[in-house]
Amino acid sequence: MTTFAFELLATDGSARRGRVTTAHGTVETPVFMPVGTRGTVKSLSPDDLVAAGAQIVLGNTYHLMLRPGHELVRDLGGLHRFMGWDRAILTDSGGFQVFSLAKLRKIDEEGARFRSPIDGAEHLLTPERSIEIQHALGADIIHVLDECLAYPATREETAASLALTMRWAQRSRDAHDGLGAGRALFGIVQGGSFTDLRERAVAETVALGFDGYAIGGMAVGEPKPIMYDLIALSASELPRERPRYVMGVGKPDDLVECVTRGVDMFDCVLPTRNARNGQCFTADGPLAIKHARFVRDPGPIEDGCDCYTCARFSRAYLRHLYLADELLVYRLLTLHNVRFFLRLMETMREAVTTRTFGAWKARFFERYKVHSGSERPPKQDRSPTGGPELK
Amino acid sequence: MTTFAFELLATDGSARRGRVTTAHGTVETPVFMPVGTRGTVKSLSPDDLVAAGAQIVLGNTYHLMLRPGHELVRDLGGLHRFMGWDRAILTDSGGFQVFSLAKLRKIDEEGARFRSPIDGAEHLLTPERSIEIQHALGADIIHVLDECLAYPATREETAASLALTMRWAQRSRDAHDGLGAGRALFGIVQGGSFTDLRERAVAETVALGFDGYAIGGMAVGEPKPIMYDLIALSASELPRERPRYVMGVGKPDDLVECVTRGVDMFDCVLPTRNARNGQCFTADGPLAIKHARFVRDPGPIEDGCDCYTCARFSRAYLRHLYLADELLVYRLLTLHNVRFFLRLMETMREAVTTRTFGAWKARFFERYKVHSGSERPPKQDRSPTGGPELK
Repeated sequence: MTTFAFELLATDGSARRGRVTTAHGTVETPVFMPVGTRGTVKSLSPDDLVAAGAQIVLGNTYHLMLRPGHELVRDLGGLHRFMGWDRAILTDSGGFQVFSLAKLRKIDEEGARFRSPIDGAEHLLTPERSIEIQHALGADIIHVLDECLAYPATREETAASLALTMRWAQRSRDAHDGLGAGRALFGIVQGGSFTDLRERAVAETVALGFDGYAIGGMAVGEPKPIMYDLIALSASELPRERPRYVMGVGKPDDLVECVTRGVDMFDCVLPTRNARNGQCFTADGPLAIKHARFVRDPGPIEDGCDCYTCARFSRAYLRHLYLADELLVYRLLTLHNVRFFLRLMETMREAVTTRTFGAWKARFFERYKVHSGSERPPKQDRSPTGGPELK
Repeated sequence: MTTFAFELLATDGSARRGRVTTAHGTVETPVFMPVGTRGTVKSLSPDDLVAAGAQIVLGNTYHLMLRPGHELVRDLGGLHRFMGWDRAILTDSGGFQVFSLAKLRKIDEEGARFRSPIDGAEHLLTPERSIEIQHALGADIIHVLDECLAYPATREETAASLALTMRWAQRSRDAHDGLGAGRALFGIVQGGSFTDLRERAVAETVALGFDGYAIGGMAVGEPKPIMYDLIALSASELPRERPRYVMGVGKPDDLVECVTRGVDMFDCVLPTRNARNGQCFTADGPLAIKHARFVRDPGPIEDGCDCYTCARFSRAYLRHLYLADELLVYRLLTLHNVRFFLRLMETMREAVTTRTFGAWKARFFERYKVHSGSERPPKQDRSPTGGPELK
């Protein structure tokens, strides 16, 4: 039996307020999931995540299969026990990383061949193997393997890729069904930026029947308005009674726009990665802690924030730690950013429940200054041994 | 009025159990003080330190005067408020770092001239200025400026240096007395490795009258037996009713040997620095977490340890984080090491109180395997922007 369930509790326009039930607790939606790439949300302990209000974290199949290896994680009791996290975990299929990170990758009908950047070993990630790895990790929500296309792609490329993704979805579904219940399987809707292909992707994916639906192929380079339209289109055709997840999104303003369009679940490295670059999120927009104007600023990163960092430390102190490259600052800024994202979701859940989402959203955008943000890798990731936090 | 006091509560042979009272709480001795070089004990938050049982931390005058600057710290309410730490703080005089780290240093009667490695600015650290800086930082226990000699030095060099140190001690004493009470001033006993000069140093320093006495010039290269003999000699001639502090020491076995000889206070970067090199302290000696034998080890770093890391995480997980260069591991290993050092001191305090120190020490050395340890800079300090954690 699967313990997975989704309840739709309230709506306001297309925005939804729901609740996901897993074997590791309930998850109130819309939800933001901090990214725990390699079995750790960078710089935070499980207690830090609980204190910040995290209900679920994401683990990356690609990274964990390569190091420390899913068999090792399974033998040590699964990813929850391994990383000391007893709330819910979602894993991706590993496909996105193979396409974006791995060397010498080659995709054919069977799956994706690539070399490990760690030891050069050859790997073949098939739909069956991805499902097997995710079962070994023991995540509560797992994903079908899909092919990820870069933006832009031609209609022909996109159609061929979608067809392969659908065949892989069926194989993932079959493999999952053969491994016993206990965890939820999400399908992934692809189809690139072509409306009819997106519609076909939704119809065919829903026909296979999944516990939830990820809207894939976002945040791969398409302009924002196109991304929002595609999400609105996909969400409007997905079944109302299943959770909808947009992978790898996004900035605070993206989260608001996607919730507006009916999305329930999100993950992104932004709050963690940008913290390591010294960028802090606030209701007024991001700020760079290293800025000279904070040199003697006794105030917190954000007035009214209830995180440990804002309760205890001044901008002047955080700036000092950041300029001195002190390890503590990466944790303190990450704590704040993760809490900011989780508070944003709490606020949106409340606004949907009270059916005041539109007014709330208008106030949010009056105040929030969208900022292109820093996209360079964090200092900590430029060290000879530190790898980038990619998903 | 000064709120500083020292009570001698029990003795067992030369080993002492005492209590220091400061304006920021009491400190049970013998005590180990984690090193907070730049206003942070590397990778730990104040809450982490409290959870580990730290009663007092050390701040480095040299590092803080250069960045962020003691005037800034003073204007933001002092070092306690700046770093969010409301327990006791001890600062050194800055002398040791000027001698070991600064560029183009030049010592004369007036003080030590050097250039800041951060911005090249010229600085003159005099006894008066060191005291003024330490008052601005607001530490509970501060130190006279002394000259530090490298080992070995000739008798003539040592005698001349001691004479300068004594003149600086008098100037430090006078400067401190002119700045109002509220913090304790410790003298520093130098004299190198010459018995008669050590004896002279003790007599002359005690004649000036300080709240406590640091035994200086240790851990600068002399062989261990010489260091222990010099400490025993200095301690035996220092006044019974004042705390004794050996600066920059040391390894767990050094701490035990020094407590045996009547020392009350210690600080060292070892638990924090070695954690960042993956070295964990245990009652059996240090272990390297990256060792292949831990790859599937489900046990904690140390059985019976009550730290957060040991309560929650396996050696296998910590090894994985260390090999992946994940920021979390530096905090988790530091938490364990700091707790190990603080537990060691707790155990010694109990052994002195129950007058079982000799038997306890014999059991400690039966089990503890002394290890030369790793002396290379931690990974985090090899990054282009990370400086070494030196004091």
